[in-house]
Amino acid sequence: MRTLAQDVPNQLDREIEISGWVHRIRELGQVNFVLLRDRSGMVQLVFNEKIDYTPETVLTVKGLVKANDKAPGGAEVHPTSVTVLSRADQNLPVQVNQDPDKYPLDVLFDNRAVSLRMPKLRAIFQLQSSLLKYLSQFMHAEGFFEMKTTKLVGTGAEGGTGLFSVDYFENKVYLAQSPQLYKQAMISTGMERVFEISHAYRAEKHDTPRHINEYVSFDVEMAFIDSEKDLMEFEARLLDYVFTQVGKNDKALLDLWGATVPAPGAMLKAPVVGHDEAKDIISKAVGKKVFEINPEGERALSDWALANNGVDLVFINDWPRKKRAWYSYPSPDGTKTLAFDLIFRGLEITSGGRRINDYAMLQDALPKFGLTEEGLGFYPSIFRYGCPPHGGFAIGVERLTQKILGLVNVKEASPFPRDRKRIAP
Amino acid sequence: MRTLAQDVPNQLDREIEISGWVHRIRELGQVNFVLLRDRSGMVQLVFNEKIDYTPETVLTVKGLVKANDKAPGGAEVHPTSVTVLSRADQNLPVQVNQDPDKYPLDVLFDNRAVSLRMPKLRAIFQLQSSLLKYLSQFMHAEGFFEMKTTKLVGTGAEGGTGLFSVDYFENKVYLAQSPQLYKQAMISTGMERVFEISHAYRAEKHDTPRHINEYVSFDVEMAFIDSEKDLMEFEARLLDYVFTQVGKNDKALLDLWGATVPAPGAMLKAPVVGHDEAKDIISKAVGKKVFEINPEGERALSDWALANNGVDLVFINDWPRKKRAWYSYPSPDGTKTLAFDLIFRGLEITSGGRRINDYAMLQDALPKFGLTEEGLGFYPSIFRYGCPPHGGFAIGVERLTQKILGLVNVKEASPFPRDRKRIAP
Repeated sequence: MRTLAQDVPNQLDREIEISGWVHRIRELGQVNFVLLRDRSGMVQLVFNEKIDYTPETVLTVKGLVKANDKAPGGAEVHPTSVTVLSRADQNLPVQVNQDPDKYPLDVLFDNRAVSLRMPKLRAIFQLQSSLLKYLSQFMHAEGFFEMKTTKLVGTGAEGGTGLFSVDYFENKVYLAQSPQLYKQAMISTGMERVFEISHAYRAEKHDTPRHINEYVSFDVEMAFIDSEKDLMEFEARLLDYVFTQVGKNDKALLDLWGATVPAPGAMLKAPVVGHDEAKDIISKAVGKKVFEINPEGERALSDWALANNGVDLVFINDWPRKKRAWYSYPSPDGTKTLAFDLIFRGLEITSGGRRINDYAMLQDALPKFGLTEEGLGFYPSIFRYGCPPHGGFAIGVERLTQKILGLVNVKEASPFPRDRKRIAP
Repeated sequence: MRTLAQDVPNQLDREIEISGWVHRIRELGQVNFVLLRDRSGMVQLVFNEKIDYTPETVLTVKGLVKANDKAPGGAEVHPTSVTVLSRADQNLPVQVNQDPDKYPLDVLFDNRAVSLRMPKLRAIFQLQSSLLKYLSQFMHAEGFFEMKTTKLVGTGAEGGTGLFSVDYFENKVYLAQSPQLYKQAMISTGMERVFEISHAYRAEKHDTPRHINEYVSFDVEMAFIDSEKDLMEFEARLLDYVFTQVGKNDKALLDLWGATVPAPGAMLKAPVVGHDEAKDIISKAVGKKVFEINPEGERALSDWALANNGVDLVFINDWPRKKRAWYSYPSPDGTKTLAFDLIFRGLEITSGGRRINDYAMLQDALPKFGLTEEGLGFYPSIFRYGCPPHGGFAIGVERLTQKILGLVNVKEASPFPRDRKRIAP
């Protein structure tokens, strides 16, 4: 019966069995130490003989637990038997017990199966697991249906650019940029409230710390809303739940990165500013008139929200129509849209809004964006047979992870990132 | 403030507001009825005037709730105002208020955005949503980490056949057949216990009721196991939890299909038979000696389990090595593997087993399967730097859905199925 490292201090003076990886070896001569790592933490093993295990070798150890104030958790194990389950080659591509900052990102990515053993890097994906859990917990509790829609599509939600093509038997199809069209189809089937957590693909050539070509998209769509305000209110409650749970249950992971999450309730105080107002705030902050909200502007706006509302989260709504997707629901005068973004710590992590749900309005919109009904496949039929007012939003899971932990590059939040040049491991 | 259809009977003699789709119209002349459908169910509206809404038109209705024993739920709404949110074209491609059995599958698939409004078809994906919820609830509660690994790979887990190729900038990559290699990498990073629910792709040309080219794979991998017995025991507990929750919370969905789930505890009584023994049982059942376990054999074996153990679930282990993937851990004499399948109601829904975790053993195995270390990319490196004994399994989510509800074709369990010829909607 295996004991986990974190539980060893509760087993003082008992014989236990533990298993894990040799994290660090310290040989003093008369007494030698091995720090053994498992999924729960570290435990110190004390040997009188010389250590002949290479770092990262996997051991199962039986031994007696003794109190020792200097050992992690105040206890250590004096082995009575050691079984080598898997011996590690001594030429490790990266030293697992070193700080990942010592290595360039590319080296960490090239040797992912070893670099992810570094507790600090592993923590990124332990946190991401928690995010996936809390996001879906909240959605199911709110009565949303979880769906898995096809990623092999005939056309792109954004109109055909930036798509990866797939050889599909005798046909050519594309990897979905988002489940946009399908989630709208699903709410129109009467499910009314759906969400999906799946991969999405963007064949964009730029290589920046905020872009990744394959990412995980958390998508929400809900029917019978009036405007984007219902969506912002819902997202605020969702993220407040997620931040609260992370703060409560995942503090050890945050601590490894010196990170914190917005306090419970803080998310509910995130200000909402219109696109014009946002540009004014940014112009004032950067000391010159801006005409676009670029990454620098997103950071300035986030700083403004922190200074004014005590929270580095800010919604932007009232977007000009020409800056949003063709399916965005226009304002009464047709110049703006019922769309919004959410900026978190200087980075856009969400885009959303009410969608066009009226067939005639869609027919009117398509030519404005250079699109035809025929080019959109089944999509227009959603609106011909009764489709309620609806809208939704998407959160990039890697971006959310990145901003919570303060990662410099979004690729760090993908276990096996894909960019223009990286297709392995 | 909207009231859902299911809650209308609790609002007798009150003014309420409801929204939904016109499901059925019944005109008697003096008094006319509309059955309004929302995500929760149906509610009857009573009009004295002629009905001028087409079926599937979306309405918001204010009205007074009155008791009526003949109405669904014992109550009906007498409207005081009706707002048309979205008018439906009267030429519906399929009649939503008819039984889906009236239409060929291809018609239902061709018109998915409308056919999924049929309550019986929508129930498939409401049940699937529950399955996704219960599966991940159990895994998180058991301390597994949820991961999302890349679907763009340089090689296939099964050795390079049956892959869809993707034009990826200047490179060619493939859609992952399974997260097999990545989930092994993740457990070796010290996460120890991981799961993933993501799409997987098989470029197989056969078109059968049990195959689909894009499916949702629920994948589990765990370290520090001894043999496949640990995995079967775990999967039995997992599915027992899922069946118990579905039986308790989703009975209305099951009833639409006349379906039931195995009773609480039944899954734990599923027999385990070796591959040789399975062939003997099948041979006896079909009255001639069989040398393979084909679909007919799986059904015979399932019937045997039902007759003998009262449960139509059966594990098959002790598979011959040449019938399993190259990464399967061999038995001591090298002829068999520590692998297993799970048959549920006559269909294989799971494959799993212990994996090779020893680098020398892997080097020995590859040439037996015509593979080279170089052809497997980063994969062999997992085993060079300390990898504990481990194994896992995968459940096809569509197949699980199919067998619970008794669907004839697995494609019915995919909202937008993809097969050799079908790439839309």
